[in-house]
Amino acid sequence: MSCEPVSRKYIVLTEGHSEPHAAKTACSVIRYRTSEVLAVLDSQQHGRTTQEVLAVGGSIPFVDSLAAAPEANTLLIGIAPVGGKIPATWRAIILQAIERGMDIVSGLHDFLADDPEFAAAAARQGIQLIDVRRNRERQVAERIGLRDDCLRIHTVGHDCSVGKMVTAIEVTNELKRRGRDAKFLATGQTGIMVEGDGVPVDCVVADFVSGAIEQLVLRHQHHEILLIEGQGSLVHPAYSGVTLGLLHGCAPQGLILCYEIGRETITGVPGMRIPPLSEILRLNEVMANVMCPCRVIGIAMNSRLVDAAAAAAERERVRTDLQLPVCDVFRDGPQELADAVLKLREEVFS
Amino acid sequence: MSCEPVSRKYIVLTEGHSEPHAAKTACSVIRYRTSEVLAVLDSQQHGRTTQEVLAVGGSIPFVDSLAAAPEANTLLIGIAPVGGKIPATWRAIILQAIERGMDIVSGLHDFLADDPEFAAAAARQGIQLIDVRRNRERQVAERIGLRDDCLRIHTVGHDCSVGKMVTAIEVTNELKRRGRDAKFLATGQTGIMVEGDGVPVDCVVADFVSGAIEQLVLRHQHHEILLIEGQGSLVHPAYSGVTLGLLHGCAPQGLILCYEIGRETITGVPGMRIPPLSEILRLNEVMANVMCPCRVIGIAMNSRLVDAAAAAAERERVRTDLQLPVCDVFRDGPQELADAVLKLREEVFS
Repeated sequence: MSCEPVSRKYIVLTEGHSEPHAAKTACSVIRYRTSEVLAVLDSQQHGRTTQEVLAVGGSIPFVDSLAAAPEANTLLIGIAPVGGKIPATWRAIILQAIERGMDIVSGLHDFLADDPEFAAAAARQGIQLIDVRRNRERQVAERIGLRDDCLRIHTVGHDCSVGKMVTAIEVTNELKRRGRDAKFLATGQTGIMVEGDGVPVDCVVADFVSGAIEQLVLRHQHHEILLIEGQGSLVHPAYSGVTLGLLHGCAPQGLILCYEIGRETITGVPGMRIPPLSEILRLNEVMANVMCPCRVIGIAMNSRLVDAAAAAAERERVRTDLQLPVCDVFRDGPQELADAVLKLREEVFS
Repeated sequence: MSCEPVSRKYIVLTEGHSEPHAAKTACSVIRYRTSEVLAVLDSQQHGRTTQEVLAVGGSIPFVDSLAAAPEANTLLIGIAPVGGKIPATWRAIILQAIERGMDIVSGLHDFLADDPEFAAAAARQGIQLIDVRRNRERQVAERIGLRDDCLRIHTVGHDCSVGKMVTAIEVTNELKRRGRDAKFLATGQTGIMVEGDGVPVDCVVADFVSGAIEQLVLRHQHHEILLIEGQGSLVHPAYSGVTLGLLHGCAPQGLILCYEIGRETITGVPGMRIPPLSEILRLNEVMANVMCPCRVIGIAMNSRLVDAAAAAAERERVRTDLQLPVCDVFRDGPQELADAVLKLREEVFS
């Protein structure tokens, strides 16, 4: 899956959904492809900057229409709602963008290219509808050809949307800063938009989930260290199958466990409490070890909802409880986790 | 998913693949829809009966061509190969059947209706191409509306193709013989062909696996007892994601663990040993209990590869080891497992 043929200049669409949680695709594209994002379209936020609204992106402006936006070649759908459907009010904006000759990049489960009205307009204008979740994965996992000299690190979590993608990216970037040959492997629509390739694992036909991830690893295992983005959670009643298929497909030797301070119930299932972090850690190690000797090497704490003092106190508490490195990759930096990756590398390959 | 609108008379196609393992779809359709199967087409087995070749079906004949077969309205593809592709040599036979005005029922991942040549021929003849794996499941699991007065029993296994479907069917039928309101819920292409409805879970888009199964349960929980067919295994590197999505989607209170005597390595992964049965039991209970209090209530032993004395000895050994009821549902009958289901029902609802 690639959305990288041309040099992109994006307008990111978040109309009516510019809370950081709903607009998580927008936030990550702005964070990691900052220079390619010219503006964000949400008429309710017109006149503000992305830094003010989404806490990322500096002076990138919100605009209230495509006509008011800087000239760009691509409209990027900046939300990832449950079930992946296109909000009805966005249809007119998408059609306008097509009429202006812009390509459309979308990570929704409902493919733009399968929509007769969008497809007809796109054909008329000669623009591309790029559905990053679309795939034709048809390979079952076979456990053949995994290299012993490539370290596979996988980010897992206690719930959805807690930082598994950003942790994998931040640790990858830190390892690169130290001169290591590390590569981030994207497994979700946002990660694919950020990295330019990957496998949209939650949209693969179920039988081929592990096979698609195995193929992704096989294609990239000439790198020294792979950091494979996790999805969902082993305790999420809707997504645990994706989580396990991914975990077994990439057969990691090390896991980084991600969680958000204050998250108590499972996303989308209000009555269901998330088990304690120690139990999440145990479940992940039990299931990972079915495929490959593996352990959790560190904890990525998402502390966005608490102040610095509370985050520091929690960090020490978890460090003591679990006897593992702990950090918030934004607040504290990813250094401790990068250290843990390199320590595991020594151990596995010594 | 339903393939039940008309009264079916089947020719089952197994051309060149009439070993019981390869032809497991054929075997189950012959076993459970015996009166609807008029003949099996495999030119290499011409003149023999299905009882001789597949150990099921009595005097149903093998034929060497459609021209030599009794008049039937449907050709049913009787194999379920890894990856689900149509053997090249079968294309001519399928086209002949279409030309003769027969509907085609297929459980392959490669949909017949998406094949331009088959689709054109079908349109010309006005026949139906019924791809039982095709689905548009788009609902995530929400854990809303599960009834407390419905007992959900799920069959799980130590590997693929060990008897999870037949165990669920045989226990359902035994409960019905005892006057209980039990219903088999099919989750694979063969089960759907046998039962006439169900969810082809391994062909659902990964994000919606648990949701599709939850919906299936919600549609049928007016029954007293549901027996939900399992798929794959939590330790299978290709299919564990499907297995867990299904396990969490149906949230069973009881599990029946199925295994085959003599199966030592994982199907399709020759070098990988299957963990001991006690470990498979532990993994399934650990993961099931994330959703719902649940335990393994009995063991379904598939003893087809050993003689009666060896099967009896193994049965006693496993019974002693695991302190659970154990039976081969064909050799010993499913009574002990039906007893265990009713005992759990008393316990859960008392």
